[in-house]
Amino acid sequence: MTPDHPRPHGSDQAAAADRTARITWSLIAEPSDAIAFAVCSVLGHAVALDLARRGEAATLLRELGGDLPTQASDPERGAPRARIDRAVERWAARLGRVDVERVREEARRRGIRQLTPQDGEWPELLEDLQETAPHCLWVQGPGHLDALLGPRTAALVGSRASTPYGEDTAATLASAFAAGGGTVVSGGAYGIDAAAHRGALAADGGATVAVLAGGLDRLYPRGNTQLLEEIGARHLLVSEAPPGTAPTRWRFLARNRLIAALSRATVVVEASWRSGALSTARLADELSRPVGAVPGPITSAASAGSHRLIRERGAVLITEPGDLLDLLPGGPAAGEGGFAVQDELDLLAPADRRVLDAVPPRSSTTGTRLADEVGFRPEEVEAALARLELLGLVECSAQRVRRARTTP
Amino acid sequence: MTPDHPRPHGSDQAAAADRTARITWSLIAEPSDAIAFAVCSVLGHAVALDLARRGEAATLLRELGGDLPTQASDPERGAPRARIDRAVERWAARLGRVDVERVREEARRRGIRQLTPQDGEWPELLEDLQETAPHCLWVQGPGHLDALLGPRTAALVGSRASTPYGEDTAATLASAFAAGGGTVVSGGAYGIDAAAHRGALAADGGATVAVLAGGLDRLYPRGNTQLLEEIGARHLLVSEAPPGTAPTRWRFLARNRLIAALSRATVVVEASWRSGALSTARLADELSRPVGAVPGPITSAASAGSHRLIRERGAVLITEPGDLLDLLPGGPAAGEGGFAVQDELDLLAPADRRVLDAVPPRSSTTGTRLADEVGFRPEEVEAALARLELLGLVECSAQRVRRARTTP
Repeated sequence: MTPDHPRPHGSDQAAAADRTARITWSLIAEPSDAIAFAVCSVLGHAVALDLARRGEAATLLRELGGDLPTQASDPERGAPRARIDRAVERWAARLGRVDVERVREEARRRGIRQLTPQDGEWPELLEDLQETAPHCLWVQGPGHLDALLGPRTAALVGSRASTPYGEDTAATLASAFAAGGGTVVSGGAYGIDAAAHRGALAADGGATVAVLAGGLDRLYPRGNTQLLEEIGARHLLVSEAPPGTAPTRWRFLARNRLIAALSRATVVVEASWRSGALSTARLADELSRPVGAVPGPITSAASAGSHRLIRERGAVLITEPGDLLDLLPGGPAAGEGGFAVQDELDLLAPADRRVLDAVPPRSSTTGTRLADEVGFRPEEVEAALARLELLGLVECSAQRVRRARTTP
Repeated sequence: MTPDHPRPHGSDQAAAADRTARITWSLIAEPSDAIAFAVCSVLGHAVALDLARRGEAATLLRELGGDLPTQASDPERGAPRARIDRAVERWAARLGRVDVERVREEARRRGIRQLTPQDGEWPELLEDLQETAPHCLWVQGPGHLDALLGPRTAALVGSRASTPYGEDTAATLASAFAAGGGTVVSGGAYGIDAAAHRGALAADGGATVAVLAGGLDRLYPRGNTQLLEEIGARHLLVSEAPPGTAPTRWRFLARNRLIAALSRATVVVEASWRSGALSTARLADELSRPVGAVPGPITSAASAGSHRLIRERGAVLITEPGDLLDLLPGGPAAGEGGFAVQDELDLLAPADRRVLDAVPPRSSTTGTRLADEVGFRPEEVEAALARLELLGLVECSAQRVRRARTTP
């Protein structure tokens, strides 16, 4: 937790004030509160908090140039002045209830630490979120967040209502990816998320990070408590929400932007038409991070969202662990491996290929018959057969020619 | 068979000579014989045949400007002169054996007719093949080939080694496509091809065309004889090869170019890494015809080729009959339908959506509690609830609010 790079502020007091202000904002503003992000990015967290606390709505609006960002969570559009008043009202109501020091003490007791841009552990990846970057992050576990999010960091996400096919796929991809030293980021939910975390935990090497929508003191969903505790014990749990925060639907949507931002690529394993995983993919795309999706049977509703991503949004089709590496920035070219047999036969001279094709699969023939069948001269067929025999594709005995058992 | 558009030649004799020459070329030259195509396109079939018959290799080479096209089936590259000599040698060997009139009589007896560009039934689609357009086509059945290949014509192809999933998919797509008045083109092979033909035959309306690699007098594979006979009895069988020709591997590859050329789009349902269906897709792409592929489980080798097409070759992912229509030139925009529920919720005002999300899925709550939870003022929540109730998404009774049973 000790800062290991130069601080943006001139003094320890300013740094401490900034940290306290960021923690306070994370206590009083929803992660979807665009007005809070706006005033903090313009004025800095400490000054913005001071003005909010003093109820100086007019000053805040003026500092924003008289205009406010549109805000998905704003109940009514209305005039900027009405909206800033409502925002200050919102914050004031919660400011009256929160005790920052008590929350920090409680977090410390639970081994939950706060990260702000002052800390070396603060991930550079979050810079892509610009002014909607979290006020602070709450993390728990032995892992160093920024160190965990190396070049091989991918989000594996998907539906809670998953199938055994999807869970096997998520676990297999995650395990292979982690075994190669990768970090698997996911949301700790039932279904695909849990399978991805479990696959990574089962691998020898690598790591997995769970990004939660609620406070780290109330692991959700309950059924994944043991899984999440293991992640917290071995790697890292992350949340934008302070301890005591209940996970709610719109916090999940805001959380999804963190999963996308904390990963260098996002892969949707199984997703129905309405899966939240699709929003994670959309947010990753908005951050210009590669998006992949795993196909499945077209008869499986659990794959409908994955197919939609590939068909309509240009997601890369993922079928094996190698594809996941290819998806990452600087990954090797796609499609390597698996082409072996194909290539071996493609490399044959056309004439040799044609002679090979004329050799019956299960019976034998003669060079003379082959010459007649393919319309070559006998010596041409003999030459082709000699080359094919060297490649182990045919067996020539006396006058008979047959395919080698190894021929596809 | 009577020509119903102006003939390219000045006289009936010339027309008859061209027809006879084209039939002769289809008897003596393999469909992969690029040199035969070259001399015929430069000199016309009759003149080229006459020179070939007289063994005037030097003249033929001179007419081609001294150079020959490269030819996949050519046993050796070698000098142009050596290659034209070999070609003339090849043709002479077969000219000595063939009896054109006997073949035509035999075909007539079997109800097999020959089509050349003189015939109105000759499909305009073949023009895209340019000089590798077939010398002539042999067809059998009540269908009028050019009329069958309307705007709704698609090839459905795939592996012989198919799975029940692939066969069901092929049959379902083909049936829906034919029911909409479409024509399903395929290769009459076991597996996906047969399932596609059967699906089309089962539909009320539409048609299906089988393009075969061998002569129409020897239906192949034998196990599909009944299916192919039904197609010949109700719609149309097509082959580039004259009666008496055995289907061989390289004739299948040449045949695939016809399947691609005779269809306005090609969809691969199931294909392994080495499936010939991939060559059909490649040829369709070379003709600038749209290519689609149906995904499947990544654990199914039978879908590996389809996934490869989508991942590496830009094939459009196909999951339902509507996607097939979208694939055709002038098809409606992709992705229509299926979005209903999604859209209904996306259309909600963000504030309404947020209030709805805060209503517990299985229990009830109160407006006051909602206001506190989402951070809105009570009157804002009341307004949102009123709108949600109108949409039938929540049920408000007295002070209690619960989700309507229909809410996803």
